[in-house]
Parts: sequence; structure tokens; C-alpha cells
Amino acid sequence: MPKLLILTSDKTEYQRLIETAQLPDLEIIPDPAEADIALGEPKAIRDALPLLSKLKWVQAIYAGVEPLVDSSQRHDYVLTNARGVFGEWMSEYVFGYLLFLEKKMLTRIKAQQAREWRRDESGRLRGKTIGLLGVGSVGAHLAETAKHFSMTVIGFTRGSETSPQVDQYFHGGDLLNFAKGLDYLVSVLPRTNETHKLVDEEFLAALPNHAIFVNVGRGNSVDEAALAKALNEGKLAAAVLDVFEKEPVPPEHPFWTTPNLYMTYHTSAISYPEDITRLFIENYDLYREGKSLKYVVDFDRGY
Amino acid sequence: MPKLLILTSDKTEYQRLIETAQLPDLEIIPDPAEADIALGEPKAIRDALPLLSKLKWVQAIYAGVEPLVDSSQRHDYVLTNARGVFGEWMSEYVFGYLLFLEKKMLTRIKAQQAREWRRDESGRLRGKTIGLLGVGSVGAHLAETAKHFSMTVIGFTRGSETSPQVDQYFHGGDLLNFAKGLDYLVSVLPRTNETHKLVDEEFLAALPNHAIFVNVGRGNSVDEAALAKALNEGKLAAAVLDVFEKEPVPPEHPFWTTPNLYMTYHTSAISYPEDITRLFIENYDLYREGKSLKYVVDFDRGY
Repeated sequence: MPKLLILTSDKTEYQRLIETAQLPDLEIIPDPAEADIALGEPKAIRDALPLLSKLKWVQAIYAGVEPLVDSSQRHDYVLTNARGVFGEWMSEYVFGYLLFLEKKMLTRIKAQQAREWRRDESGRLRGKTIGLLGVGSVGAHLAETAKHFSMTVIGFTRGSETSPQVDQYFHGGDLLNFAKGLDYLVSVLPRTNETHKLVDEEFLAALPNHAIFVNVGRGNSVDEAALAKALNEGKLAAAVLDVFEKEPVPPEHPFWTTPNLYMTYHTSAISYPEDITRLFIENYDLYREGKSLKYVVDFDRGY
Repeated sequence: MPKLLILTSDKTEYQRLIETAQLPDLEIIPDPAEADIALGEPKAIRDALPLLSKLKWVQAIYAGVEPLVDSSQRHDYVLTNARGVFGEWMSEYVFGYLLFLEKKMLTRIKAQQAREWRRDESGRLRGKTIGLLGVGSVGAHLAETAKHFSMTVIGFTRGSETSPQVDQYFHGGDLLNFAKGLDYLVSVLPRTNETHKLVDEEFLAALPNHAIFVNVGRGNSVDEAALAKALNEGKLAAAVLDVFEKEPVPPEHPFWTTPNLYMTYHTSAISYPEDITRLFIENYDLYREGKSLKYVVDFDRGY
């Protein structure tokens, strides 16, 4: 009989949702030593790993699972993360901010404060080129939204070319060519060794000066000093960052006051228990039948 | 041989585009007395009407044609307006502002100014209900974008139920029922006698307190005093207005300082000569063949 340990701050809500689903044979238990399944926040599960002696499967409630992938941790179980549930959140965030900038919303607010009827012309998404750094399930969703807004979509990936909404793919050494024609660059890259400071001074210099950069992936993919420099020198129109090398961002960090830099605070997507429970149920059925699970993390690759 | 008079501030650009298209038989002329076709801004054409003795067809470059529809003017020609080209603009504007509010962008900017890592939760479009006051070509486009964002769409129209993206239609006396369950209300109504102050105190009271109102139609459909009152009393979460009863809005108007009211300045959509020329060419072919034109305005109905 499968025994589940829930390790999240929303434990009561997860327990209620899972009990309501009446999953066959499943028992929710409080003792880590008895659990073969753990559902929860990656950090909380990492801390419990030494006690989880019967562990076979972990369903993480986040997309980012760095604490568990870390090479100092054991990897003798199947790790699945949250995927396919954040695309809509990310689309709302990314295109919301692109429209905020194109529609000159702050300029309009300032005109209102000055009681000025000012008819500055708006930009538009239509016809623009968006470049996606990473085209997994989130990238594919962003590509769909971009197509709805009549944009051209290009993607930079490690290898896969699975999204039909991407007009052109770039790989490997072609990073600077990828950057050249972009109006918007959006990173959805996970934190891995390979993504470390991929967006560096050279990459930023290859972007057109009017480009807007949005990061909803992980902060490690950006050389933060180079990004602040590019914005200070007007070599990039704007940056919208939800993720950072170090979170929370320390008070002395230059980003707080870098011009045309908009910070949000790792708030672009939220793990809703309803969404994650849906994933868990899907995977539980596969687990019980001894089949391969969905959204399995490759410990070596890191996502 | 058809003779065209161009009456716009972008005359050179329109002339270049139309000449490039090499429309058969068409002659562009400067003398109003010789023209059977006029293309231009409604006000400019109205002013020229007394001289346009051979006029058969006017292609307006705007959607709003109030100066020509006005009952004091002659109506002995076919008037076509600009339609089908503004939907994308309006979608970018409407959903851009809804996301601006749901994603709490101003709150995030203030947190940044205070160097505060503040993780206020964002709202989302997904699952929300949007009500469209008017479901013509612009409304239909807004409905498509709403569906892309997994929203429920309801429409209030005079009669037609032509958009497959609208989940439910309301008509006539059902206006208050239409208002009841809305998260967002968007007016795309044209200026006519029937739309005069449709959004009045009673209608606003029927909206939920958390509702957001966006007006990209015409200002006459709103009782502006009632709207300011609803916002001042917190009976509406926010309003985003691109159009007003009187434009430019006079400096003493309460809207400039009404809380949670965002003004833009009739800038949500722009008539691009490329787009309008495409419409003109389409209609010119029909005109030459003696067929019915597209986007014909009903002078009595007013749109």
C-alpha cells in the first residue's frame, strides 16, 4: 500500500484535495520513515531525505528542483517536478510586461498626473520578433501566445524542436545569431551548469538596442553586472526580471535603481494546490501501475 | 474613370501607397468638384462635402464617423468606415491594461523604489469572466484573445450573435443581468443615440465591486459623474478609459484625479495608412465592378 508524506506549507489544502480524489490504496502518513512517496517543496524534501528510508518517488510542487538535483544529495528515487501548469501564468506575466512597455503605461500615468492630454504613439506586439531562450512546456506556451499576437517566434534550445509555433530554431554556437534580430528576449531557462551566465556581455551586445529582456527562468543565466551596464549605457531598452542570482535581492544590489529595469520578486507564477494535485493524481495512477512517470527530472541534466 | 480625392494629414503616404498598388483606371485628383470618391478623415470630408458635387463613395480612415453621420449632413453617397483593422490594437490595449492591474505592476514598482522584496500574489486572467459591450469586429477579436487566456466571454449586443468565441449573449432589457457576474467589462460601443449613457449609475451598481471597466469605444456611452462616484466609493476596482464624453478632457475634469482611474488619450488604436489602404483597395475593386461595398455605414444606425 503506497504511503504518502506531504511536506508543504499548504499541507492541509493538499491533504484535503488528495483525500477528496479518493486515490485507490493511497494512505497519507506523518512518518517519513514509512513513506515511499513524498510530495512537497524541494527544500523541505531535501531536509527530510535522511529520514526517508523507503523513498521511491518525489513529486516536487515547483518547477525548480535545485536542492534535490544538487550533487551532494542522494538520487536513488524518481523525481518528478511541476510542469505544464506554469505556461499560462508565464504568458500572462511576459506579455503583460511587454504590453506595459509598448503601450507606454507609465508615460500615460505621468501625463494624467500633469493633467496633460498627450497622444504619444503606442508600440505594438504585432509583427515583432520574440526569442525564447529555452522552449520546454513554458516556452511552447509563450510561443502560442506570441502567435496569437501575430509575432514571429524564434527559439534557442539544446536540441529539441518540438513546438510547432516556433518559426525558427537555433542551437549551440549560434547564440549570437539568435540574438541579432530580436525585439524581445525571454529566458525560461532552468538553473543548470550549462545555463550559467549565458546572457553575458557579448550576448547582450548582440541584441538590438531597442530590445526588451524578460527573465522568468532562473537568475544564474544572467551576468547581472553586464545587464546593469547595458541598461545604464542604453544598449538595451528595458529588462523585466522575476528571478535573480541571489534571492531575495540584497538591498545594496544595483538592480533596485538601474534605469528601465523592472523587478518583480519571484512572483510570476504560483504553484496552486489544485494544479499540482492534478499532476500528482496523474502520476499516482502511473506509479501504481508500475509505469513510467510524467515530468521526470534527469538528475544529471538538472531539469 | 473613377477620380479619387485624398483628404488626410498623411496625404503623401496614402497617395504613395495607392499609386504603388496601380489600381486600374483610378486617377488621384486635387479638385473636390471632380471627385466621385473621397478617402480621408471624417471631419475633413465633412468640411469638403459642399464642394463634392459628384460624390458617390467615401472611405473613412477611422472607425468613428460621427461628423458624417450627423443628421445635419447630406447622406446621398455610400459611406464605408475602417473596420477589421483595429481588433489587434484593441486586444493589445485591453489585455495589456487588465494584466497591468492583475499583475500589480505599480505595487511592484513602488516596492522596487523602496528596495523591498515584496511577494504580493498576482491575480490572473485565467478563469475570469469578461463582458463585451458590443460584439462587432473589435469585440470578436477581444473574445478570441480572452479565449486564448482561458476566460469566459459574455457579450451584450443589439441582436447579432455572430462570434463563436462568445459563450453567452445578452440583449435589450437584460443589461443588468449581463453586468452581474463580470470580472471585467469592456465597452467597444460606437457613439449613437442608443448607446448614450448606457453605463450609468444603475449599471455600475450591478457590477461586482472587484470589477474593472475598460472603455475603448466612445465616451458618450458612460455617465462620467456616476463612474467617478463609483470609483471614489470603491464600488468598482478600476477603470481604464481611452475615450471620453469630451476630448481632449478639460483640465478641471474630475477624472484626472479619480482614484484607480487610468486615462489614455484616444491612443488605443492607430489608423495605419497600410491597413486603411488595404481596405480601400478591397472596396475599390467592388466599386469598379458595381458591387456592394464592405464596411458600409448605416446612416440611421450610426455605425
